[in-house]
This record gives sequence, structure tokens and C-alpha cells, in this order.
Amino acid sequence: MVTVSIIGGSGYGGGELIRLLLGHPNVEIKQVTSRSRVGEYVYQTHPNLRKRTQLKFSDPSQLESVDVLFLAQPHGQAQKNIEAYAKLGAKIIDLSADFRLRDENFYEQWYGEKHAAPEWLNKFVYGLPELHRAEMANASYVSGVGCNATASNLALLPLIKADLLDLSSPIFIEIKVGSSEGGAEGNSGSLHAERANVIRTFSAFGHRHTAEVIQEMGVDASRISLTMTAVDLVRGVLATAHAKVKAGTATKDLWKAYRAAANENPFIRVVKEQRGIYRVPEPKILAGSNYADLGFELDESNGHIVAMCAIDNLMKGASGSAVQCMNLMMGWDESLGLEFMGLHPI
Amino acid sequence: MVTVSIIGGSGYGGGELIRLLLGHPNVEIKQVTSRSRVGEYVYQTHPNLRKRTQLKFSDPSQLESVDVLFLAQPHGQAQKNIEAYAKLGAKIIDLSADFRLRDENFYEQWYGEKHAAPEWLNKFVYGLPELHRAEMANASYVSGVGCNATASNLALLPLIKADLLDLSSPIFIEIKVGSSEGGAEGNSGSLHAERANVIRTFSAFGHRHTAEVIQEMGVDASRISLTMTAVDLVRGVLATAHAKVKAGTATKDLWKAYRAAANENPFIRVVKEQRGIYRVPEPKILAGSNYADLGFELDESNGHIVAMCAIDNLMKGASGSAVQCMNLMMGWDESLGLEFMGLHPI
Amino acid sequence: MVTVSIIGGSGYGGGELIRLLLGHPNVEIKQVTSRSRVGEYVYQTHPNLRKRTQLKFSDPSQLESVDVLFLAQPHGQAQKNIEAYAKLGAKIIDLSADFRLRDENFYEQWYGEKHAAPEWLNKFVYGLPELHRAEMANASYVSGVGCNATASNLALLPLIKADLLDLSSPIFIEIKVGSSEGGAEGNSGSLHAERANVIRTFSAFGHRHTAEVIQEMGVDASRISLTMTAVDLVRGVLATAHAKVKAGTATKDLWKAYRAAANENPFIRVVKEQRGIYRVPEPKILAGSNYADLGFELDESNGHIVAMCAIDNLMKGASGSAVQCMNLMMGWDESLGLEFMGLHPI
Amino acid sequence: MVTVSIIGGSGYGGGELIRLLLGHPNVEIKQVTSRSRVGEYVYQTHPNLRKRTQLKFSDPSQLESVDVLFLAQPHGQAQKNIEAYAKLGAKIIDLSADFRLRDENFYEQWYGEKHAAPEWLNKFVYGLPELHRAEMANASYVSGVGCNATASNLALLPLIKADLLDLSSPIFIEIKVGSSEGGAEGNSGSLHAERANVIRTFSAFGHRHTAEVIQEMGVDASRISLTMTAVDLVRGVLATAHAKVKAGTATKDLWKAYRAAANENPFIRVVKEQRGIYRVPEPKILAGSNYADLGFELDESNGHIVAMCAIDNLMKGASGSAVQCMNLMMGWDESLGLEFMGLHPI
Repeated sequence: MVTVSIIGGSGYGGGELIRLLLGHPNVEIKQVTSRSRVGEYVYQTHPNLRKRTQLKFSDPSQLESVDVLFLAQPHGQAQKNIEAYAKLGAKIIDLSADFRLRDENFYEQWYGEKHAAPEWLNKFVYGLPELHRAEMANASYVSGVGCNATASNLALLPLIKADLLDLSSPIFIEIKVGSSEGGAEGNSGSLHAERANVIRTFSAFGHRHTAEVIQEMGVDASRISLTMTAVDLVRGVLATAHAKVKAGTATKDLWKAYRAAANENPFIRVVKEQRGIYRVPEPKILAGSNYADLGFELDESNGHIVAMCAIDNLMKGASGSAVQCMNLMMGWDESLGLEFMGLHPI
Repeated sequence: MVTVSIIGGSGYGGGELIRLLLGHPNVEIKQVTSRSRVGEYVYQTHPNLRKRTQLKFSDPSQLESVDVLFLAQPHGQAQKNIEAYAKLGAKIIDLSADFRLRDENFYEQWYGEKHAAPEWLNKFVYGLPELHRAEMANASYVSGVGCNATASNLALLPLIKADLLDLSSPIFIEIKVGSSEGGAEGNSGSLHAERANVIRTFSAFGHRHTAEVIQEMGVDASRISLTMTAVDLVRGVLATAHAKVKAGTATKDLWKAYRAAANENPFIRVVKEQRGIYRVPEPKILAGSNYADLGFELDESNGHIVAMCAIDNLMKGASGSAVQCMNLMMGWDESLGLEFMGLHPI
Repeated sequence: MVTVSIIGGSGYGGGELIRLLLGHPNVEIKQVTSRSRVGEYVYQTHPNLRKRTQLKFSDPSQLESVDVLFLAQPHGQAQKNIEAYAKLGAKIIDLSADFRLRDENFYEQWYGEKHAAPEWLNKFVYGLPELHRAEMANASYVSGVGCNATASNLALLPLIKADLLDLSSPIFIEIKVGSSEGGAEGNSGSLHAERANVIRTFSAFGHRHTAEVIQEMGVDASRISLTMTAVDLVRGVLATAHAKVKAGTATKDLWKAYRAAANENPFIRVVKEQRGIYRVPEPKILAGSNYADLGFELDESNGHIVAMCAIDNLMKGASGSAVQCMNLMMGWDESLGLEFMGLHPI
Repeated sequence: MVTVSIIGGSGYGGGELIRLLLGHPNVEIKQVTSRSRVGEYVYQTHPNLRKRTQLKFSDPSQLESVDVLFLAQPHGQAQKNIEAYAKLGAKIIDLSADFRLRDENFYEQWYGEKHAAPEWLNKFVYGLPELHRAEMANASYVSGVGCNATASNLALLPLIKADLLDLSSPIFIEIKVGSSEGGAEGNSGSLHAERANVIRTFSAFGHRHTAEVIQEMGVDASRISLTMTAVDLVRGVLATAHAKVKAGTATKDLWKAYRAAANENPFIRVVKEQRGIYRVPEPKILAGSNYADLGFELDESNGHIVAMCAIDNLMKGASGSAVQCMNLMMGWDESLGLEFMGLHPI
């Protein structure tokens, strides 16, 4: 068995990682840390794990060496401690935003501060298997992904790969998100009485995840925007990208591009039905699953495309992708431990 | 007291009309019809009206003359019966889609069928007071408004009036809607177990309300699209318009345009705060109120504007606007009977 | 115009009071205090009030004299400052729990601490008009009511008044509540991601509101229990009381008792329909209204009665009752300013 | 591989069965029937199964023989066709209510009609493994369980087994349920706009599932009642039983009884924490899992016990228990295919 530990296990991403790793046939969890809950059972924080593990939260200063170290801490911690962490784990998967961007100036531009370990930026592979599968086979260090960036990148992926997008036109990505994105700490607006029933556009421009789309999709920063709207749901993201396809692109060309994406990637599905209730990608049925459901609609009269991607922000948008990365780094089947199908109804 | 009757009172729009008219100081409801519920108490269908009215649903074939007749029927009924209705009410306000468009060809293009009473199209004023206040003073016939069209029209209104929009660029309007838009009949996808927790883009293009935006805002049909996404909420619409402002437009120009709109219209408010939980327009706090809350965010680096409008689809998007029209047609204060402030929290 | 001020206006009960008093024809709000928001517009905290008032929060140390002073502070403040408050307002309505119980020992038993102003306990009338209407006409000081106590008291009221309850049998009251009960501060369990979708029995026994039921209904403390379960709703309480009726009591006797309660009290309605969607009391349609909807079902084979009461916890369970008390204290129509009917659908 | 077929696969219980059986290591699904969807892909109805199966719905008249036949039809179908079904499958697990009761008169009393195949009633074992594990090893026919009955039976199980309940006192079971209980067909009250935000007591007495509690727990019919309240949730049931323990019973006796139940049953857990958010059983974290979480609170002053059981109505309350039964009937590990832990947050 491969040993793994998780630094920062009391948050939502950390809890999801523990769940996935407990169910993974090839790994054994050695330690899970939480500064504020040392000695408490993990299941007291993540009640779904009751009767499944007797693990207790460890003190982060008492970490032992493992084969794979997962970092699931708030922004800024990983970059400060990366040297120390590298001595504890031969392979590191960092779910935070610290090592997602390759360029330190670009990092500073989007995060408003200098990076604490810029020399490490190029040692990390961006943690989306659908974009960097090959590199992961030999990678020691893999970053996490922003959930909104992932929904956006996967919505655009088939179009970029097939070179169907008119990159001189603007790309507006409207993203609707559930409350688990806000994390286990939350803020005054996260209180149920304020957050229930919302349609709240909390960021019209400039969300930090935009940087990951610019970097990974290679689109011009001035032509792309992500708009974030909170809706009443706990888990789930839907990214709807409005863009223009190249002249002459027809619906059948899009079908070809999307089918190729689904064939090449075990967790990509195309949802575009003519009948029934579920005709388009919907995040609710993805809760707990690692799928990214893609859909599209083309207005052939003017080339306007609406490209959609639905994911579970805690799975494909965070911990699910991280486990998928581990599988690829270890040379295992990409889907190992990620078999849950999601629920209907829910 | 002015007498009013409502044809089609068992639906959600009809119920909301009854509530507003019961609370209106200048009117008396004479009849409310429902083909399928003749003889039942209105409060058995609309339980909020219990102890407030002993009205029973009437047979639509037993209608008596009134001063103002409200039509709240499904699409297609009003145009078939308009001659008969005109004999019953000197003034008619039709909440359906039948008389919203002025051009019969345009109607046919969007509704896929010939209009049954094209000679009546020009007798109706489009029922949004913010656009046609002056004409309403002398109007006998006023149409309803599409709720999604209203959110879109009001989101764009300050920009169009102040001539700040670059009309050669595309306008993408992303609309998120609650379940009451689906009506009291619903469909298989309206079942709670399927409709709860959704982020469901049920119409990427071509929603019929688009026609009202083209007509009323005067934008080019090929440059505008409405995308409809259902979210988990009962009442409420948020329209988020992505567009480009004319070169040189600054945030202060937008403030001026929005403040003017709020000053000229009692039910328009501008919401753009730097702190607190409610910084942007949000439909949830508008349930039951007739306000349209507008907001905007401008990216001065590239002229991209995100213009927002939140309304209660059953109020400003339907019955509230209809009562506001009646007030203007009768020469009364525009806000009469529409004083409810909305709730917080909710 | 009668002048009123509100001490503690940033919470949910305070916000609801402001809304009601702004819409009340006979009063003028002079000041609203909030220690932490001095100088901020009230509408920045309660966004439904935008364009309806330009009031700003005052410093509680700068209070001026008024005709009626409303106290809407956290538990414990009113009893510490009651002498000072009595100099500011000839009439005081305290929404907190400080003056609800008449006996200082009983207070200490349920609140676990000595009362700070026991000599004031008997100067207050318990603030439920349905129980103390007559006394209110001459009262200077009226307490608030616990929302769960109110739902329980009103569920039992017709049975107690008509002497139909077997008081030697236990009374189990199961109460389901929305999240606004938790207040604007909340706790870790109030975060949307944790609080959404819950059915969480947070108190099986011993909730403090039980004391108000014991005092007001005169039931034996050992025979009554309140069990509190949080469900996914913002506003609303449903109390379901399981009890036994006296031998020989038939459904028709209950009808008589319930109808009498509805006739004697403008805000009590009986909901017991054989068809339609809304056959029983439901809190959702009461949001913003002051009604208490009562229902019952009797198993004549064994005398088991299920007695229900639905209210909006912020209205009939707090601020609505407080305004109703003010109306009675001032000799006005009991319903003044409380006319909102509630919404359907919602 | 053992072959299985499912008759009636388009409903919620049927869909959940398909999901579980697709993930079960020892079985292969041969056919899934749906009268109205013959030839359609199963994933068009149950969208979570996309990319996991290419099964299409079969015509129920075209059934082939299998090792285990699951019946997931509406009430009344199984009893009419049981002879025919018995020729198709050596082992039958019927999820409907048709074979849950052992006595034909008791059936008639609760279902209001004569049973169509009374001679089969005693061939079936009641399908709750926690009550009939031993019998299942040799059973050919196993019934389903009512979801509300299951939550009630498991709430009482430790108390009955340890003989701690005062059976001369009444037992009031208050059950709160999600909307998936209403089935994929629903009714007018199931529409999202009507069903969202509800606390709706749709059955005060006499719910049919009561019969299963009387039969399985052996309690006196006149002393037990189930009260059903719909709340805003899709999956989940919480049963809260109010009862009296025998004189002298202390909290430690209850701990012993509950721990024994958890030790003897892999899917029973005891939830009774002093701190954290999840101190009591909550259905939301059980979505998709087969656990039954039990909790209790005893008022030692008067012997009043509040005993709670939370389950996912489609899992432990229907399809999960059915798969658990199959495992026992086949001599496999009881937990096979039922390993999903549930999600947090959700």
C-alpha cells in the first residue's frame, strides 16, 4: 500500500480527499492534520466518515514521511512551507492556489503579492489531467485547480483543441456556484438566512480563477471574463461560456470535437438530449462524482456558441481531480477510487 | 370604487393580481374566473387570501361588465376572444403574450403561428410603465410584459436612454429564474425532486421574450441573445447583460445614467454598494415587491459592462406592472396598492 | 404622529420592526440604534428598505425621548438597562426574553442565572394579544414572545380555552423551524453548506421557550416537552402538538373551539381543507404576514389529537406581535400596519 | 456472475437499484423494464448513469429468466403477477408494499382492499435485514420495506430488543420526509413552486406504513401513531419517536442498547455527540448511503425518550435494503455494493 497524508483536513476539500482516499484500493492514510482539532476524530468534523475510520486529526508539526503528501490548506501556506513539505513526501499534490500559475509576475498580477517560492513554480504541473495527462506520469509535484477555472477550461477545451473558436471575439463565461465554494469558514453572507434563495453576482470581473483560464487555454486576457453568481445549492458549478466560433463552423463540427473530448477522457461526458428532463449538463446530479458534463448550443445564423460545463466543485473542481492526478503520477488506472456515479434524484 | 374582474384567476399571475387588487384602495373586484374551479373559494387555491376574501371563482361565460378587465389566461386565449372582452371592459390589461408585439410578422416569426387578431396589435400599449408611461394616460388597452423581457429591458434601459451602449457589439443576457415562471401547471421537470437544486440552462437561444427586448430596446436581432437558466428559487429573476459601452464611457457616466433612471421611476432602485452582504441586485429580497433593482460593473480597460436587473417575476415581471399600468390608465398615483417593501431575511 | 424608537435595529427582529413601523400610518420612527453600525444607512443592512427610508443607525448612547420604545436586543440587555429605558419611553415593548416570565425563581430555573431586575417582572404584560388583549389597553410595559412558545401556545389555545385537553396526559410538541430563528449572528452550524437541506433536531428537551408555554397555558412542567428541529426554510415555524383530549370529545367539539378562536382573534385562521394543495397550516405562505394558522386532526378511536400552528417567527412570533401589542396599548385598530397577506407561491 | 433483472426501472427506487447493481461486483443486469420507455437508454431517465451503462429499457412482456428478479412497480402490480414472476426468477425481491404484511386481514384493514394473492403472504420474509437477517439466508422471496416504517422500526429497535420501552404508554412518531418519497410521478402539490420551503403535515394519522411498525415491532395499534410532515429536501427521512421508557431506565442503559444495535448491524451507527455541528442523526449526509443513524435523548426526570433514526429513503428505506437482502439471500457479504459513505457537505 502507498502511504498518504493530508495537511489541512478539516475543510471541505480536505474532507472530500479523506473520503476518496479511504475508498481507494491502493492507498493507506497515515495522517490527517488540523491545527485546531488535534486529537478529535475525523468523523466528528466529517460525519459521513463515522464507522469508516477511527483516524484522529494530527498536529501539523508531528508529520511523518509518506509516499504522497496532499496539501489542502488555505491560500499562502503551501508556498511558505514547500521546502519542508518536500522532505516529507516524494510526491506532492497541492490543492491550494499557490502553484497553479507558471509565471511569478502573472501570479503577482492576479494575487496582488509576490510569490514566496517562485523557483518552485516550474516544478509543478497544473493539476487538470485533461490538459496535462502525459506530464503527470513523471511529475513529482502537481498543483490543484480552481473549481471555476476547471469548469471554464473544460467548457472551452473541445473548442480550443479543435481550433473552432474565434479568438478575436470576446468570451464571456457566466459561472453559477454552490455554497461549498465559500469554504468551511464562510463569511457573514454565508449564513443560511442570507445565502438561501440567492442569485447573487458576487464577482462581475477579476476573479482569481480567471488567471488559470488565461494560462491554460491561451486566450487573450483582455478578451475573456468570468462572472460569478452564487445560487442556492451546496455542491456544484455550471460554467456557461458565450463565445463565437470561426466562420463556417457547423453543429456537426462541434459534435465531432465534443465526442473526441469524451472519448479521450474518462471523466468527460457530452450531454445534449432532445427529450427528457436532463437535456443539458447539470451539476446537481454530479454531487460526489468526478464527471465533467459538457454541452453546447450553436446559433448557426451568427456563430454564437453557448458552451456549458457542469462539475462538482469539491470533486472534479478540487479533490477528485487531485486523486485522478495521483493515479496518473503512480501509473494506476486514472479512475481508481473515483467510481461513484452520482445520484438521481437529489 | 372602480370595478375590476380577472379572467383566469387560478394561475400564479392571476393569484398575485387578486392579492394586489384586494389591497388596492380604489378598486373592487367583481369577478374572478376559473373554468375548472367554478364555485370554489379563491382562498382554497391561493391560501394566503384566507380570511381576506370570500370571493368564489366564476364561470368565464357568466362575466359582467366592469371598468377594468384583467386577462390572465394562457397564451392564445386573449387574441381569440378580444372582441368579446372589449364589450365587457372599457379598459383591458392583458397579462398574456398575445398583444405585446406590434408587428404581426414579427409575432409570427417568434410565435410560429399567425396572430388571430392582428388588427388589434396597434391598439395595445406595451405594458412597461418605465417605457410607455405617457401613452398609458390615454390608453384603453395595455399588454402585459414577459418577465424575462422586463428584467432584460430594465437592465439595458439606463444605457440605451443615455446612449452609452455600443450597439455594434453583441449583447449576451444571462437570465436566472425561479420556478414560479413555469406556472401552476408545470411539466415533468417541475417536480420538486427534479427541480430542486438545479442550475439548468433550459434555453440557450430563441426564448420568445427575446422579441420584446428587440422591439422595446431597438437592438439588432442578430446581436442580442437571451439565455435562460433555472435555479432553486420560487420567485425571482436576475438578468445579467454582458455588453460593450461606447469608447470613452467611464463609471461616472454610468452612475449618472442609472441615477436618472431611479429618479424618473418610482420602482427603479440602484444597488451598488462597497460593503455589506447586499452589494448587488438580488431577487430574493424583492418577493412580493414591485421594485426593479439595477446594478452595473464596468471594466474600464476594455469597455465590458455587466448590467444587472433583479425583479420578482410575478410582480414587476407580471401582475405588479399590470397594476402599475392600471394606476396610470386611471390617472392615479403610480404606486397605489404596490407599497409592499419586500422581506429581509427571506 | 406617535414617535417610536428601536434599540437594536440590526438584527432580524429589529429589521422586521423597522419595516412594519415604516408602513404604519400612525407612527414616525425617530431613531434606530446599532452599536456596530452607527452612521450607516439602515437600508445597507436591511436591503428591502432601500428607497423607503434614509434613516441611519444611531449610537445607543444618544437616545432621545419617544412615546413608544421598542427593545430588540440580545438576551440580558433589557433587564440591565430597564431603569434608564423607562425614562426615555412612557411605553416600552421589549422583544427579548428578559421580561416574559412573571416569577423570578422560574426565570432562574430556565435561564440559569438570577434576573437583574426582578422587581420589574410584574410590571410587564406577556406580549401575546390573543392571551392578554384586555390588559394591554392599560399597560405601559409589554414583553415580547418566544416564537416557538407562540406557535405552541396558539396551537393549544382553543383546546385550553374550551377545556378539551386531558391535562393528565403528556403533551409532546414537535416544532420545526427556519434558519432566521438563529439570528443574524448565527454559529458554525448556520453556514449555508451545513444548514441547507437539514432535518436537525437541535434540542430534544429543555428549550427555554418551554417556560413560556408552562406559564401561559398553565400545563404541568413534567407533562410537556418541546422538541426543536431545524429544517430548510428561512422564515417559519410549525408547532405540532400531540396530546389527548378529554373522554367524549368529538371532532365537532374541536371545530367549535377552533372557530371561536378564529372569531375572537383577527390574526387566527383555521386551516382544515379536504382538497387542494393547502389543507393544513403551512408557514411558508405566512412569510411577512401576522397570521397564525391553526389546524387539528383527531383520532376519535383513542383521543389522540394532533394540533398544529404555523406562524412566521419574525412576525407573529416576534415583531408582528409587538406591533399588534402597540396598537392595543395605544387604543388603535389591532391590525393597523399588519395588513400584508403573505405570498403564494413562495 | 449472478444475473438480475428489474421490473419497473423508471421510478426513483428503480433507478437507485440500477445504480447499486451496476456497481455490484457479483451481479450482471440482464434487463430493466419500463412500459412507457421501451427502447430508450436508461441513462436518459437516470442521467447519473450516463457513460456507465448502455442498457435500454425493455418491454415487460419480453422478460427472460434470471437468478434474482427485483420488482419495483407501483402498489398492486406484484400481487397480481406474482405467479408469472416466480417462473422468471428463482429468487424475488419485491420493493412494493404488496408482500410486506403477513396477515391478509391486516392487509385489508390498512390498504382498504382484498389482497390478490394471500397465499403468497407467508412465503415472503419482511425485507429489513436488521430484523430478519437469519431467515434471509434461506429465503426465496423477500419483500421491500416502507421507508417511513424503516425509519420508525430502526428508531425503536434498540429499545424493543433491550426491553426498555414502556409499552403501555403511547408512542408518537413524528416523521419528516423529503420529496423523493412522492415518486417520479408526483401530484399537484409536488410542483417545485408549491413543494419548496414546505413544512407540510400531509398525514396526521393512518399512514399505511404504520402497519409495518405494528407488525414488526409488536406494538399495540391503538398506542402508536405516525405523523408525516414534508420538508424541503429531496432525499431523506428523520423519524423522531416520543415514548416512555420503563421505570428505572437510565441513559447508560440506553447507551448499552444502542451500542449493541450498532455492533450487530453493519449499517447502524449511533450519533450522539456533545460538540460539533453533527451531534444528532441527520438524513442529509446519508444521501446515497445505506446507513441508518440512530440517536436518543432521555429526560430522566419523567422517562420521556426522544429516539431518532435518519435514513436515505431511497437507500436504507428502499433499494439499499433490497440489495442488502440480496447479499444475505446469496450468502455474500452483507455490505457488498453498498460501500458509498455519503457526502459532506451536501
